[in-house]
Amino acid sequence: MNTLGNKLRVTVFGQSHAPAIGCVVEGLPAGFAPDLERLGAFMARRAPGRNAWSTNRREDDVPEILSGLVEGRTCGAPVAAVIRNRDPHSGDYAGLKRTPRPSHADYTALVKYGESYDIRGGGQFSGRLTAPLCFAGGLALQVLEARGVTVAAHISQIEAVLDDPPDLARVGREDLEALLRRPFPVFAEESGVQMRQAIEAARLAADSVGGVIRCFALGLPAGLGEPMFGGVENRLAAALFGIPAVRGVSFGTGFAAAAMRGSAHNDPFEIDGDRVTTRTNHAGGVLGGITTGMPLVVNVAVKPTASIAREQDTVDLETRRSAKLVIHGRHDPCIVPRAVPVVEAVTAAALLDLLLESAPASSTPAFT
Amino acid sequence: MNTLGNKLRVTVFGQSHAPAIGCVVEGLPAGFAPDLERLGAFMARRAPGRNAWSTNRREDDVPEILSGLVEGRTCGAPVAAVIRNRDPHSGDYAGLKRTPRPSHADYTALVKYGESYDIRGGGQFSGRLTAPLCFAGGLALQVLEARGVTVAAHISQIEAVLDDPPDLARVGREDLEALLRRPFPVFAEESGVQMRQAIEAARLAADSVGGVIRCFALGLPAGLGEPMFGGVENRLAAALFGIPAVRGVSFGTGFAAAAMRGSAHNDPFEIDGDRVTTRTNHAGGVLGGITTGMPLVVNVAVKPTASIAREQDTVDLETRRSAKLVIHGRHDPCIVPRAVPVVEAVTAAALLDLLLESAPASSTPAFT
Amino acid sequence: MNTLGNKLRVTVFGQSHAPAIGCVVEGLPAGFAPDLERLGAFMARRAPGRNAWSTNRREDDVPEILSGLVEGRTCGAPVAAVIRNRDPHSGDYAGLKRTPRPSHADYTALVKYGESYDIRGGGQFSGRLTAPLCFAGGLALQVLEARGVTVAAHISQIEAVLDDPPDLARVGREDLEALLRRPFPVFAEESGVQMRQAIEAARLAADSVGGVIRCFALGLPAGLGEPMFGGVENRLAAALFGIPAVRGVSFGTGFAAAAMRGSAHNDPFEIDGDRVTTRTNHAGGVLGGITTGMPLVVNVAVKPTASIAREQDTVDLETRRSAKLVIHGRHDPCIVPRAVPVVEAVTAAALLDLLLESAPASSTPAFT
Amino acid sequence: MNTLGNKLRVTVFGQSHAPAIGCVVEGLPAGFAPDLERLGAFMARRAPGRNAWSTNRREDDVPEILSGLVEGRTCGAPVAAVIRNRDPHSGDYAGLKRTPRPSHADYTALVKYGESYDIRGGGQFSGRLTAPLCFAGGLALQVLEARGVTVAAHISQIEAVLDDPPDLARVGREDLEALLRRPFPVFAEESGVQMRQAIEAARLAADSVGGVIRCFALGLPAGLGEPMFGGVENRLAAALFGIPAVRGVSFGTGFAAAAMRGSAHNDPFEIDGDRVTTRTNHAGGVLGGITTGMPLVVNVAVKPTASIAREQDTVDLETRRSAKLVIHGRHDPCIVPRAVPVVEAVTAAALLDLLLESAPASSTPAFT
Repeated sequence: MNTLGNKLRVTVFGQSHAPAIGCVVEGLPAGFAPDLERLGAFMARRAPGRNAWSTNRREDDVPEILSGLVEGRTCGAPVAAVIRNRDPHSGDYAGLKRTPRPSHADYTALVKYGESYDIRGGGQFSGRLTAPLCFAGGLALQVLEARGVTVAAHISQIEAVLDDPPDLARVGREDLEALLRRPFPVFAEESGVQMRQAIEAARLAADSVGGVIRCFALGLPAGLGEPMFGGVENRLAAALFGIPAVRGVSFGTGFAAAAMRGSAHNDPFEIDGDRVTTRTNHAGGVLGGITTGMPLVVNVAVKPTASIAREQDTVDLETRRSAKLVIHGRHDPCIVPRAVPVVEAVTAAALLDLLLESAPASSTPAFT
Repeated sequence: MNTLGNKLRVTVFGQSHAPAIGCVVEGLPAGFAPDLERLGAFMARRAPGRNAWSTNRREDDVPEILSGLVEGRTCGAPVAAVIRNRDPHSGDYAGLKRTPRPSHADYTALVKYGESYDIRGGGQFSGRLTAPLCFAGGLALQVLEARGVTVAAHISQIEAVLDDPPDLARVGREDLEALLRRPFPVFAEESGVQMRQAIEAARLAADSVGGVIRCFALGLPAGLGEPMFGGVENRLAAALFGIPAVRGVSFGTGFAAAAMRGSAHNDPFEIDGDRVTTRTNHAGGVLGGITTGMPLVVNVAVKPTASIAREQDTVDLETRRSAKLVIHGRHDPCIVPRAVPVVEAVTAAALLDLLLESAPASSTPAFT
Repeated sequence: MNTLGNKLRVTVFGQSHAPAIGCVVEGLPAGFAPDLERLGAFMARRAPGRNAWSTNRREDDVPEILSGLVEGRTCGAPVAAVIRNRDPHSGDYAGLKRTPRPSHADYTALVKYGESYDIRGGGQFSGRLTAPLCFAGGLALQVLEARGVTVAAHISQIEAVLDDPPDLARVGREDLEALLRRPFPVFAEESGVQMRQAIEAARLAADSVGGVIRCFALGLPAGLGEPMFGGVENRLAAALFGIPAVRGVSFGTGFAAAAMRGSAHNDPFEIDGDRVTTRTNHAGGVLGGITTGMPLVVNVAVKPTASIAREQDTVDLETRRSAKLVIHGRHDPCIVPRAVPVVEAVTAAALLDLLLESAPASSTPAFT
Repeated sequence: MNTLGNKLRVTVFGQSHAPAIGCVVEGLPAGFAPDLERLGAFMARRAPGRNAWSTNRREDDVPEILSGLVEGRTCGAPVAAVIRNRDPHSGDYAGLKRTPRPSHADYTALVKYGESYDIRGGGQFSGRLTAPLCFAGGLALQVLEARGVTVAAHISQIEAVLDDPPDLARVGREDLEALLRRPFPVFAEESGVQMRQAIEAARLAADSVGGVIRCFALGLPAGLGEPMFGGVENRLAAALFGIPAVRGVSFGTGFAAAAMRGSAHNDPFEIDGDRVTTRTNHAGGVLGGITTGMPLVVNVAVKPTASIAREQDTVDLETRRSAKLVIHGRHDPCIVPRAVPVVEAVTAAALLDLLLESAPASSTPAFT
């Protein structure tokens, strides 16, 4: 299932070492003129080789747009984009079919697809596939912005270091815009310093670290989402677990809600001018699967990079015996910073899908 | 979207105070003879009024099966079941359209559906709708069992009390069967005692508490699930967020993976007889969206019951001013114990859907 | 796949001789007050035993509405309805598992579902399942009507007798309303007389006849439908082939277009006041899968009733030898008249689904 | 909705005059080695400019495969292919936004997408988009063939000329293979001669003609397809109406069944060795939406080419007045011959999707 969404449909294709990767984006409103320079800048945020905490693999990652745009405007047809794979070191991956890398999809993919599976560079499970996701989500972000919705994320945790948690009920558009300008998006500068130290320490130890990304969306109307299995949480979670290395998705206060009492967790309603708001926002902007109009808050847990430089235990699938594995090649000691725009992109795509799908469910005016 | 699944399709209907609630279950294999007595016993685990930590509302909740069974066997047609609503206290809910209950779906549903929304007892957002989910999931559990798959959950946290975490790589069928026999399913008896004390303390304080449920599935084949947006995590999360009050879903080590290093989080492969296993199971049985054959482990965060007995702040939607709200009626101080079978049911439905949908994706034999 | 639609979702369940049949209708706009008396009258048009050309099986077919309505208005929750099966002659169908009825689903259902298949009365393939379809479609018809869309069908052919073909570009709302008032809906009275004679002749010959139903929708906006596989034709055809005995679906001039030249088949555009219309309507109101704003015209071919009174050749599946079969019980010599409201109902459900799903695909105003 | 299918998912993109057209094919079994030369030969059957009865536009139409194949074998990742647009005469289409071509999608697309719609060459509604459909369907045909299923079509009608109708119950694999070898696929050579004369006569008259394509599939197992809205007819029709110019889809005897009596239309069951067959095949191999194991027969009505050389009436959307239109450029007087492989391709894609999705619905052995 390489397709996400109902009205905005994003279909991703490619493998790490195929001729190309890319995507088809269907359902963008016609007549929209994307800012391709900004789109490129957005995509560059996830590109490798840009800074100390990411791999040295350099890619231009410039998408060629094959359809859907005429004189810079969407024409109603799907927007297809292709990114060529230019710098593969295929040799690095020889032998992996015999000795699967722990905590990678190598083994499960071999079980599923058999000998023909393209294991080079992680094949279709490679983090590289997030580049077309960023292309599609970057377009969605611009459409959302034109409709008054801002999406931005911060790194809320790297290993044991936490970023200052913002007031989930008061986070504002300026806060998000400030995040979007930072190369290492945290609210508290000092947190960022410590997080980078934790990443560097892991790298020096031939190891890796995980983290948590918290993503916000401001400006969503109240009433978005369907009950039960069509809720905002259901759809966002189904989308976000499509990002490699994501291990958990929660909303608002998330798993910490489990340790709270109702009197502390409940968000009292308030009147703010002509809007109904809540004093706190433990709900993260969603009640019963439907948006409240408060900031949407989704938290995404990212596991430590599975590819580490030190020797690991695995098995030889041919001899059916224990084996040692040393992974060569270039690998981030922490993918969380590069995953931030991916989380923003996927969140934006899922939210735009919901917005496009949304129609007034009532034939009489509501109380709001 | 009251429908879950592709091949096993569960459609739920009803409101808390409508004449009935129920479901339609499509795609059960024909020729299957469900044990209706066991199904009833399973459904009873979520029914209210059975013990000290649940509400006093008494329901028979005996589903009437309208179709799909002939002489006790599934015939290939959808199994439809209806549960009558017998004991509603509709009067308790008058006025809620003006003063929505904090952290309930009252407000968002009013925005979405307008004045006609059926707010009585939480309407279609009521926890009561989990009864037909348990009917459907209870059938799925029996089909899974016949195929060698066992699903069971424990309460891993209530407020600050944790249950002994099991070894996610070694949890066995006997462990799960023991859980299924316990009225309060925890691994460590002492944890259960403390959890019930925490619930009782909340009740005495006119308050409520939340918790976490950890659900296991043993016996799944390796290779189940599709890449990207069709992964086991995507599909389970999309299903589990359909349960009211769920705030987070994670797999294996979940959000705790964020604080780990790769060398600790990676699960080394091992040979166990003729099977490929992993020494640890931080992955929770899924890599790249595809099952490894190790125990599937999914964690579900449940918020504290939103309905608490003490006075709360809200707004009057008519006067657009602040207001006080006292919720009458019967409400669990903690819904986690009753949510355990619901989590099992929804997990089972989603897993059976995946199993039925699954076909060999390879035309050549795999390495395993 | 007993579910039709995306935004308006109709899920049908039941077998001919199960305790009940019914449906769940999700996505009806909240706040709509259906006229249940008119709904009953609509459903009565397909009910058997009402006239000379239908079977004598009498059913009350009064649906019990279990959810989704509060004080006569839709509340946003799915509308579930149940129709009890009261008058089954199960004995009539014994032995059919050995000697499948020609041109029925008996044989294919046995292959698919095995011995457990409920063959009584045609099981889940019975025409009786069209009763809940009429319930759901009857609701859709009323919602459409409130939005200015009228749907009505005529019998355009029975055996060799044709009804006067109307001018597909000029058929008006009065024409459709007149059709809806007629117990035997044809444009030319004389055609109706001859058609009934053809049916009666078949009955006397212990035989049956087929026919064609042509269904119109007036008042649809131009621009409805998606390109390629999401077109109005794709969706209507996918829905209409769900009606038992339907063998073909075409639009506008349909298969007759194959014999025409482009100069005759092309529909020249014209200006009619402030509307763009076409002089002819061979297209049946759809170009490129998208509505033109002209009358939508869909033709549905219905095969002759498979159950005929005379002896037929079949096989004995147990002895694997040729066998003779005499079908007892009550069967219409022609189901076309009773299928007319079913075609209207399914067309209405599919069109309302398209309407609810439809959102402006353009962010700039169009030329119209 | 540019995507077809559930398990085999084909997503098509591009416009006639965009940089490229193409498709993404997801769900092909891993380890399959397509014969790319045969695929090219298959695609060439729909390419223009090859013979007297098609346009002179010459395209190489050589797809570049970007992903999904490793050393000639499918690896489990989606197969993406791109076909560059090389020979566009964009100038020919200037002004069409003001004066839409009768019976084209110009007008409806302008209503739907607004001014930004890419009208050049018919944009995304161009018949050129059937090239990637043939790529995808050509792969499906090869996979089907490896599983013993043969798909082939003949031209059963051009204007008033009919091809000899074959015995739908007896058509054999050699018949289909013979069709596949013929550049103008008919059963009776003389029919082909007359059909080409009819096409040439239309061309000389600056006009066009329509026709009917009948497509067969041999070797399908009995039991394929789901009841109601998931039947083989529903799914094939939903797919085939995605081909431009298709106006009707019917199965077996199709609309002619309307004129028959049941005694003539019913297909008596017979025993043929160890198989259950039917003496006739009016059903076209499907009963109740489920395959019988007899030849699948689907008929597709194709309208006359809308682009004709003679002057036509239309409107000027700017002045809102009547206008005359002369369409320049290259247009087939009859697209039916080139549509034959497209019908085969789409039928194959839909059938492979059904086959991949199909799992035994019974847990007990059937009678067959």
